Amino acid sequence: MTSSDPLVARLRAALGDKAVLDDPDVLDAHRNDHATFCTAGVPRVLVRPSSTAEVAEVLKAAGAFGVPVVTQGARTGLSGAANAIDGCLLLSTARLDRILEVSVEDQVAVVQPGVVNAELSRAVLAKGLFYPPDPSSWEMSTVGGNIATNAGGLCCVKYGVTSDFVRGLEVVLASGEVVRTGRRSAKGVAGYDLTRLIVGSEGTLGVVTEATLALRPAPEAALTAAATFLSIEDGIAAAAAVMEAGLQPSLMEFLDGPTARAIQDYRDMGLPADIGSLLIAQSDRGPRAAEDVARIAAICSEHGAVEVAEASDAEESRMLLEARRLVNPALEPLGTTLVDDVAVPRSKLVALLRGIAEIGTKYDVLICCPGHVGDGNMHPTVVFDRNDAAAEARALEAFGAVMELGLSLGGTITGEHGIGTLKARWLEQELGPVGLDLQRRIKQAFDPGNLLNPGKVLQPF
Amino acid sequence: MTSSDPLVARLRAALGDKAVLDDPDVLDAHRNDHATFCTAGVPRVLVRPSSTAEVAEVLKAAGAFGVPVVTQGARTGLSGAANAIDGCLLLSTARLDRILEVSVEDQVAVVQPGVVNAELSRAVLAKGLFYPPDPSSWEMSTVGGNIATNAGGLCCVKYGVTSDFVRGLEVVLASGEVVRTGRRSAKGVAGYDLTRLIVGSEGTLGVVTEATLALRPAPEAALTAAATFLSIEDGIAAAAAVMEAGLQPSLMEFLDGPTARAIQDYRDMGLPADIGSLLIAQSDRGPRAAEDVARIAAICSEHGAVEVAEASDAEESRMLLEARRLVNPALEPLGTTLVDDVAVPRSKLVALLRGIAEIGTKYDVLICCPGHVGDGNMHPTVVFDRNDAAAEARALEAFGAVMELGLSLGGTITGEHGIGTLKARWLEQELGPVGLDLQRRIKQAFDPGNLLNPGKVLQPF
Repeated sequence: MTSSDPLVARLRAALGDKAVLDDPDVLDAHRNDHATFCTAGVPRVLVRPSSTAEVAEVLKAAGAFGVPVVTQGARTGLSGAANAIDGCLLLSTARLDRILEVSVEDQVAVVQPGVVNAELSRAVLAKGLFYPPDPSSWEMSTVGGNIATNAGGLCCVKYGVTSDFVRGLEVVLASGEVVRTGRRSAKGVAGYDLTRLIVGSEGTLGVVTEATLALRPAPEAALTAAATFLSIEDGIAAAAAVMEAGLQPSLMEFLDGPTARAIQDYRDMGLPADIGSLLIAQSDRGPRAAEDVARIAAICSEHGAVEVAEASDAEESRMLLEARRLVNPALEPLGTTLVDDVAVPRSKLVALLRGIAEIGTKYDVLICCPGHVGDGNMHPTVVFDRNDAAAEARALEAFGAVMELGLSLGGTITGEHGIGTLKARWLEQELGPVGLDLQRRIKQAFDPGNLLNPGKVLQPF
Repeated sequence: MTSSDPLVARLRAALGDKAVLDDPDVLDAHRNDHATFCTAGVPRVLVRPSSTAEVAEVLKAAGAFGVPVVTQGARTGLSGAANAIDGCLLLSTARLDRILEVSVEDQVAVVQPGVVNAELSRAVLAKGLFYPPDPSSWEMSTVGGNIATNAGGLCCVKYGVTSDFVRGLEVVLASGEVVRTGRRSAKGVAGYDLTRLIVGSEGTLGVVTEATLALRPAPEAALTAAATFLSIEDGIAAAAAVMEAGLQPSLMEFLDGPTARAIQDYRDMGLPADIGSLLIAQSDRGPRAAEDVARIAAICSEHGAVEVAEASDAEESRMLLEARRLVNPALEPLGTTLVDDVAVPRSKLVALLRGIAEIGTKYDVLICCPGHVGDGNMHPTVVFDRNDAAAEARALEAFGAVMELGLSLGGTITGEHGIGTLKARWLEQELGPVGLDLQRRIKQAFDPGNLLNPGKVLQPF
């Protein structure tokens, strides 16, 4: 395979022909992540390095040609951070897919970025350990992508997000230099925390080639309680009471009325037509789980629950969680979905949900609102007909209005999905001009040539 | 009070006379933190601002005069980070001492940096909440100082360190600009994580003027188990087995033989003369704590414990922890102490402790080694006679050799005390030249004039 493109020729000489792809169909298939409404450019080449040294070669070649680099994992992101830029080099981590070590003694795993989250989770579980970050995409998404977005998930309410489990990184900088950050030990404070700076940086500061991840002892099986309420207020009040009771639920999910009705229409779960909200909570505290679930159920009843169900075993628990798992398939037949990701202090959740309902009315769009209520992190999802240009315009306006509302309540425009290109224009509103300027200076310190995922996070694309 | 120093005059005009001190005796009393062997310069002025706006005025004045700024909390640090620099402005946070809010609903506290850790801990406990970071200095040290060093403590093994509880900060930059980082919500990923970058930066990136701290539900009372072993190996093996058993101890402390003997000499705790190591562990899992403590005791017996004690109530638990609390008073009569702070992966603890014993022999100094064994974070303490110049020189060599040993075992030169001036010359060895250069570029991005605590962390003082 000879190429008239000197960049392609250099990369093939360094990595071999099979690792460097420039077939237009292949490139076209790799332009997008899972974000709705984010533009994607036409890439120049796709490379699939298989070692840190090869990643360094790729970045040096890109630097020599002044070509922007977009790193891609499984492209399951929801903010366009992994979308191609015109003329870019796509750096796929697909072949950096080895679990290098799982240490029971040190309770760490050392992995390459292309390892799929579920694969890691199963490998460590086989040794009695637990890697908690569990984004909904976990069966497909990679650890590297989770690190790039600082992914959350269902169990964050008890265990925290991806950054809470990243101890150290090996990173290739834009210059092609390799740096190790952080540590393998549980604690360490030598110098500024570059590990945390790189986690969540969406491919703009470096390319992660190895991660040392903290693990926990595997928890005992979780039990589930679920409760339906006539109103949003009752469901949120019950969630708040559970959190304040110190029960440390390992999952705490909320579905608003429109979401619950969409699920009931999709599959009969016995949810009433007048449902105002549905709360699902779990405890994984082993011998205390049954008692916890009973207390959660009692708290829900005290807060006006219409129906309360308690699982007594894993199978019943799975069934009670089923409604949450059906959110995406249930919304899909209703139209195109634009998923938002605002997080607010829990005390502002009722105001957020009431405000979202008003925004839906104002812009004449359906907004379903599931979310990780224990963290105050909701996913208001605008559902619309993409073939109706006016509806699409209203959907986009509603999407922006939801973020403005979140900010006005002391929240953030993104709890776990990231900025990418989707939210870059709202970032200054959240950070302020001084904060945004500091962010730009950090980008400059790492990547003075602006080669790594330029236009993502910090600038409008 | 008029002053011929134009900086002092400007500060008095802005903050009032009482907030600006230049009496030489007062300045002299504020030159040092608690570090041994760290030089301290002669400050030019001490200011005690009482608001964010005043801190901004102070930094603008310092910038206008090109005067370096050293921020000080309670000066309980152990690495010289809060030591004066010749001609510097000392910025005391003593009057920024208000707890602004404790929210049960959002499980957060909002505080100024001068609040003492214990004061905050008691205030939140009164509302049924828990602020876990508990450095040994907690009755004296401030939240701001804890943030500056990313302080750890005894309960880190279960709950994590200071950075795990800092959600957001208000920071005054070297320019005098005020920036807010992070969030109040449990989750948030908008832009690079500046909060984590500032935590642990030892006063070199900005002056923290407000912190939003995550709280947890207060745990139930802890129960304690303690066990003595004939060797270091047995004690470490027992600790490893407890960690791997998934018992999630809320405290896991280790004392080596020399430390245990020093304590026994200081106060009769019934510890045998041939003691090789002492392990103390707690569980705060409420109804499961007694069972946990029994399992810990059984694990210790299986690993060769000579004596095992289990507390059945809070008073017995306190007594079993007493030996740990006596480490500092017991070592004090023996000579001057130089406390190190290495952390290694737990699998390397035996090698670390054996190597430390060899270093003690080689340099003919006493090294006592207590530590947070569950985190792999040990505090090898060199004890020597400061009036004996040769002994002092050997102590310093031994101190350096311990850090080299920690690094050679894949560890870090500081688990929780920080770099300050004490360890600045070892930092490059840990971070490597590329990593150190990145750190310098970040410092430059925040503080281009190098006004904030210059020479600390990054450069030899």
